[in-house]
Amino acid sequence: MEQSLHVYNSMTGKKELFEPLTAGFIGMYVCGPTVYSDVHLGNCRTFVNFDTLYRYLLHLGYKVRYVRNITDVGHLVGDVDTGAEDKMAKKARLEQLEPMEVAQKYTVGFHDMMRLFNTKSPSIEPRATGHILEQIEMVQDIIDNGYGYVKNGSVYFNTRKLVEEGKGYGDLSGRKIEDLLSETRSDLKNQSEKEHPSDFAIWIKADENHLMRWNSPWSVGFPGWHLECSAMSTKYLGKHFDIHGGGNDLKFPHHENEIAQNIGACSCAPAKYWLHTNMLLMNGKKMSKSDGNSITPTELITGDSHHISKGFHPMVIRFFMIQSHYRSTLDLTDEALLAAEKGFKRLMDANRALNGLQSTTESGALDADIRDTIQAAFAEMNDDFNTPKALARLFEIVPKINSLKEGKIKMDQVGAAALADLKACFHAFIFDIFGLEDQAESGSSTGAKALGGVMDLVIDIRKQARADKDWATSDKIRDSLKEAGVQIKDSKEGAEWELI
Amino acid sequence: MEQSLHVYNSMTGKKELFEPLTAGFIGMYVCGPTVYSDVHLGNCRTFVNFDTLYRYLLHLGYKVRYVRNITDVGHLVGDVDTGAEDKMAKKARLEQLEPMEVAQKYTVGFHDMMRLFNTKSPSIEPRATGHILEQIEMVQDIIDNGYGYVKNGSVYFNTRKLVEEGKGYGDLSGRKIEDLLSETRSDLKNQSEKEHPSDFAIWIKADENHLMRWNSPWSVGFPGWHLECSAMSTKYLGKHFDIHGGGNDLKFPHHENEIAQNIGACSCAPAKYWLHTNMLLMNGKKMSKSDGNSITPTELITGDSHHISKGFHPMVIRFFMIQSHYRSTLDLTDEALLAAEKGFKRLMDANRALNGLQSTTESGALDADIRDTIQAAFAEMNDDFNTPKALARLFEIVPKINSLKEGKIKMDQVGAAALADLKACFHAFIFDIFGLEDQAESGSSTGAKALGGVMDLVIDIRKQARADKDWATSDKIRDSLKEAGVQIKDSKEGAEWELI
Repeated sequence: MEQSLHVYNSMTGKKELFEPLTAGFIGMYVCGPTVYSDVHLGNCRTFVNFDTLYRYLLHLGYKVRYVRNITDVGHLVGDVDTGAEDKMAKKARLEQLEPMEVAQKYTVGFHDMMRLFNTKSPSIEPRATGHILEQIEMVQDIIDNGYGYVKNGSVYFNTRKLVEEGKGYGDLSGRKIEDLLSETRSDLKNQSEKEHPSDFAIWIKADENHLMRWNSPWSVGFPGWHLECSAMSTKYLGKHFDIHGGGNDLKFPHHENEIAQNIGACSCAPAKYWLHTNMLLMNGKKMSKSDGNSITPTELITGDSHHISKGFHPMVIRFFMIQSHYRSTLDLTDEALLAAEKGFKRLMDANRALNGLQSTTESGALDADIRDTIQAAFAEMNDDFNTPKALARLFEIVPKINSLKEGKIKMDQVGAAALADLKACFHAFIFDIFGLEDQAESGSSTGAKALGGVMDLVIDIRKQARADKDWATSDKIRDSLKEAGVQIKDSKEGAEWELI
Repeated sequence: MEQSLHVYNSMTGKKELFEPLTAGFIGMYVCGPTVYSDVHLGNCRTFVNFDTLYRYLLHLGYKVRYVRNITDVGHLVGDVDTGAEDKMAKKARLEQLEPMEVAQKYTVGFHDMMRLFNTKSPSIEPRATGHILEQIEMVQDIIDNGYGYVKNGSVYFNTRKLVEEGKGYGDLSGRKIEDLLSETRSDLKNQSEKEHPSDFAIWIKADENHLMRWNSPWSVGFPGWHLECSAMSTKYLGKHFDIHGGGNDLKFPHHENEIAQNIGACSCAPAKYWLHTNMLLMNGKKMSKSDGNSITPTELITGDSHHISKGFHPMVIRFFMIQSHYRSTLDLTDEALLAAEKGFKRLMDANRALNGLQSTTESGALDADIRDTIQAAFAEMNDDFNTPKALARLFEIVPKINSLKEGKIKMDQVGAAALADLKACFHAFIFDIFGLEDQAESGSSTGAKALGGVMDLVIDIRKQARADKDWATSDKIRDSLKEAGVQIKDSKEGAEWELI
């Protein structure tokens, strides 16, 4: 690949040439789910987007260590994180469960959903509770370096010191410490322990009835929820690594505080490039459960929601997500999903048709055109992972593929090498990079496989019936198939079928 | 359920009445896989057996907290665990991977395999690396209680003290400390640090190049591999809980050392009942990779092994495992698997036939017989989870079900209530307790669902062809279906089909 990858760095607000810290290797950390409830669709979008990025980096030949954490402790309710009740422990008490039992239930559910969306497992999936020792050591380092102070068994990060030293607290989110001051007027419990309103807890003394608790030098307590990502990214990727990703909503306070912690403990910001996915909207508005303007991933798949006319296959949903750039808002509407379903099918049909084409010549008139389009598709990906534009390039070739299949363009227009390149390009984009699966081919159950053979038989019988002018049988076949969920289409090449 | 559950307790060598420590609740800990390589088939047997036990306890109405750990650090090579190289770190160095990357790869693979075998996720699946703090605290407790001593940064458990106090080191495995003395003549590194040969490491100082390492009061090191189970079972189930399970091969040294650690740290043995699964043999001999007498779970499913004539569906393999009692050796042979395949199909066919039966009477002559057999099947399960005998009871009813279906026994022989009980019993055993899935019904893909409708059409066309004496069409249908993997069977009720 001659082209160079450029990525938009949220830290600088610019597209920058991507240059890994160690040639050939990439360390990438993405903030994972909090496992105290079912994963949200917006989170799914973030993880599918980063899965696509990860797949593209692998496609480029990088050895990527992709770390995505599981937050199974310490994610606190409220705009500021101090003193608010720990969500995990709250749910556990309500359900009369051990917190780790809740975490296990939703971790399994999360993995199931990620599997439906065909995301690759990250290289490492560290758990917050699995790194308490590392977090305690990081708190100690922060205190030792003068950036943390202890109040009644809890430990707070001193943001004012960072600002006074010109080390930029607020740079990523573009907030000024004066604004932060005025924003945090809440009278939450323990608020008074802070020396400055924008300070945040890095170790929290547990209430007597708090279920998740560990011994530490300061109190029996639990880590502040920003701390885990600093501790785990440092452990598995080092003090300074290539890419840190997450949803837009994590910029502040989470990522800002992560940076503060890393500077406090390791004297440097964790990542070279910060990448953030944008929001998922529904019908043009922010999803909100309380307003009724929301849908779960499961509802979207089953169709069990009044917001959509039918259920959508996870691959259609993934295609829908890829149709939008990761830095753009993605508006989920029934119309857009139905359109994505058609687009997905059109792409898959074209790919199958492409694979059926046989070249008859060494070179052809269309070769240069095909090569330009392939080159352009990769150029779009190299421009900050522009999946919608890369997809558009593939769709530019689809009419040609269909014309070749139908004989409207003769096969002597496409040389063998160009055809092979085109097949490889479609395969790489559809399966390796976009992470899609062909529903018509992926039915892995024995039943789905048998269907192909049985349909060959049915199409044969129908052909014979039509040749015999036995319209009764021919009609019966069409109607029964429709009832079974199979549609027959006639073309020059003979009849074809598809699942409705 | 009037009957009482009895379980064989490895600690006492007797079948005992099962009485949970807290009425209605059960805490169960099972030693899970070490994730530095693909899961062995023998381990799969253990986990499927305990999954079946777990399912039966749930069926009895207990609220079960089932903890099965993931050993992602500290499992050491060799007969004794001191000084031998840490398997995880070794593999990681060979593959040039971060140890947790290896652990993640094989954890994902293990979960995939457990899903194929339709095992339920445990309630909690704690990782050894996720509980270093708890393990360090347990080592400290053991030292404080006088059962541990420090040598050059490593910490050892003092087994002699336990024996001298009459606290029974060796009780579970039936070994005497004098035997242990003569067994451990190896000149392994650090062996000399032990005060007594049967002592074992609970914290090990890491070599300079050892990848997995944590700070501790004694050294930068890692926990001895027996320690994790003591620390995690205590954390999630308390100092004393109901059931501790594992493979037979773990009795010594692993479980013996676990008991020692718990006595040392908590002054009591961890579990009331110890349950151990027996070995999986192949062709009558112990599986051994070096002898070529071994097969992986994947090979067993794909058929990619010269030891078997074909691949077997995971549900057939699960059925095969259930056909044997968990305390018996299970001999894997091609003949036994082929027989299991037939048996599984016969059971599933019978269950589908049973569900199709409609009662025509309030009570019938067979009712008492049916009720006795149901009762007997549960009695077998209550006799130390005797799955093969319970299965045999179900098979006693199968000929009756088939006769009822074929009209050889009239439906007025079975009352509505008895029929409902029988349907419920079959459903409970097959799906809830044995954890089997009906292949013919479980094809969840759209393609598999469409096949049913299309096959109705094909059977209709075949019927018409036969009525018209159009043997050419009729034969063509039979042959094409066979090629597609579908077999047609004619019965009094009309033609039926099944996937070959």
